[in-house]
Amino acid sequence: ASTLALGDKKVEDEEEVKAVKSGAAGGATAAAGDGGNGNKEVVSYWGVEPPKVTKEDGSEWSWNCFRPWETYKADLTIDLEKKHVPVTFLDKFALWTVKTLRWPTDLFFQRRYGCRAMMLETVAAVPGMVGGMLLHCKSLRRFEHSGGWIKALLEEAENERMHLMTFMEVSKPRWYERALVFAVQGVFFNAYFLTYILSPKLAHRIVGYLEEEAIHSYTEFLKELDKGTIENVPAPAIAIDYWRMPPDSTLRDVVMVVRADEAHHRDVNHFASDIHYQGHELRKAPAPLGYH
Amino acid sequence: ASTLALGDKKVEDEEEVKAVKSGAAGGATAAAGDGGNGNKEVVSYWGVEPPKVTKEDGSEWSWNCFRPWETYKADLTIDLEKKHVPVTFLDKFALWTVKTLRWPTDLFFQRRYGCRAMMLETVAAVPGMVGGMLLHCKSLRRFEHSGGWIKALLEEAENERMHLMTFMEVSKPRWYERALVFAVQGVFFNAYFLTYILSPKLAHRIVGYLEEEAIHSYTEFLKELDKGTIENVPAPAIAIDYWRMPPDSTLRDVVMVVRADEAHHRDVNHFASDIHYQGHELRKAPAPLGYH
Ligand SMILES: [Fe+2]
Ligand SMILES: [Fe+2]
Ligand SMILES: [Fe+2]
Ligand SMILES: [Fe+2]
Repeated sequence: ASTLALGDKKVEDEEEVKAVKSGAAGGATAAAGDGGNGNKEVVSYWGVEPPKVTKEDGSEWSWNCFRPWETYKADLTIDLEKKHVPVTFLDKFALWTVKTLRWPTDLFFQRRYGCRAMMLETVAAVPGMVGGMLLHCKSLRRFEHSGGWIKALLEEAENERMHLMTFMEVSKPRWYERALVFAVQGVFFNAYFLTYILSPKLAHRIVGYLEEEAIHSYTEFLKELDKGTIENVPAPAIAIDYWRMPPDSTLRDVVMVVRADEAHHRDVNHFASDIHYQGHELRKAPAPLGYH
Repeated sequence: ASTLALGDKKVEDEEEVKAVKSGAAGGATAAAGDGGNGNKEVVSYWGVEPPKVTKEDGSEWSWNCFRPWETYKADLTIDLEKKHVPVTFLDKFALWTVKTLRWPTDLFFQRRYGCRAMMLETVAAVPGMVGGMLLHCKSLRRFEHSGGWIKALLEEAENERMHLMTFMEVSKPRWYERALVFAVQGVFFNAYFLTYILSPKLAHRIVGYLEEEAIHSYTEFLKELDKGTIENVPAPAIAIDYWRMPPDSTLRDVVMVVRADEAHHRDVNHFASDIHYQGHELRKAPAPLGYH
């Protein structure tokens, strides 16, 4: 039951997908032999059929945005208290930036942690993508190996996007929240892009501190759930499949695994910053791939 | 022997990696207990150890830029002749653009196909990254699932980067070639970025046609190898591991699998363009993930 409770949007999407699919399949016979110059039929002309994917128990895999082999069990044993002690001026500047950004955020969301999580995850998924993209272009330009860091940062971006896909099942954005996300993404993407070009060590340090704040927010979220001020609804189906959770999991369990994810991002980003502080490029140290 | 023949650069890189690693390991005892405020020691403080990865035969995995589970056997049975017949004005414009770009390329490289492959792969890895990044940001902004297309396009970018990592073992870039790549990437990245924002269907169509040209170039490359005008050297170690090739494979085998990859990219991009032509967004049709 819990897999259906919050799945309205998903079901609707899947029906549209099926419509596209059967359009293609219907065209398969019609298009055979023509040069691929029909618009409706060409999908099948190119012969690109998505592979049939099944769950471990043999039932059909119902997600297109992630696959069974990308799912994992979160490591809940990770130290949540560990914090990076700022040493250099850049460290202190990074921490100051993050603390300053928390101010308007706390004011805007107050104790609406579900909404806060959803909104902030739209921002959290940006740094990994920007960093991965810049390292990719650098690797191409310089004819250099990446040491796995491109993939590690893109994995982080994808993980954050999955956080968003999860929280948006619990809390629906209103029109002015959508507008806000639009504006914030525009500013933050460019700001982070510039920061990463000027000083990757600062950029990764900022993300490290942002993740420390995220851990704090999710801990507050848990407190509200335990107090009962936020209802502990069943976990969305997408979360159960992504983190391989028991089917009767709740929002509380989801927040626990997301918080563990943030702790891992904290480590990866402080680690990346440290490599730069030691005067190395990231590619000189193997990236922590699959560090969940 | 063939695994060592072209591996000079790699060995040198790995030694530096070991230096970073042992620096960290040496610091592990020294840093225990301090707040992570030493610069040399913090790598171990964050406790981010790259997982030990082994090959199927139990020997140590020697690449950080890709992992055993990302390797595959190329599907050489794919139809190399299949071409998209331009129908609309946009199609024709896309084809014209690609044909026009081939002119200066042919003039510059003449019959130096090794060099040509290396240089063009630095460009080929850009569209997938740009498309994936834009779809990622859109998915976040609109609170929408991606249908797997973010991952599919990023996979393409990574696959092209592996082509580059392979060909740069065979043909070393000279300083003016590096300068050229630098300039071309700057122009192409921005041009493709703008095109993708204005018309994703045009952008994917252009890439589809570019891949058709790539298939043609690699076919010419094979002809030169068969004529003996280009020496059929042993395959680089990285290629043998990435495409799971027999250890005695040659450059000819490498060009065969790379050409098969390009044919798959052709299909994926024409398919993506077709979905847009049918008036759908990409996320409405499941992405061909793992289509090699
Ligand atoms: Fe997150
Ligand atoms: Fe995070
Ligand atoms: Fe390629
Ligand atoms: Fe390609």
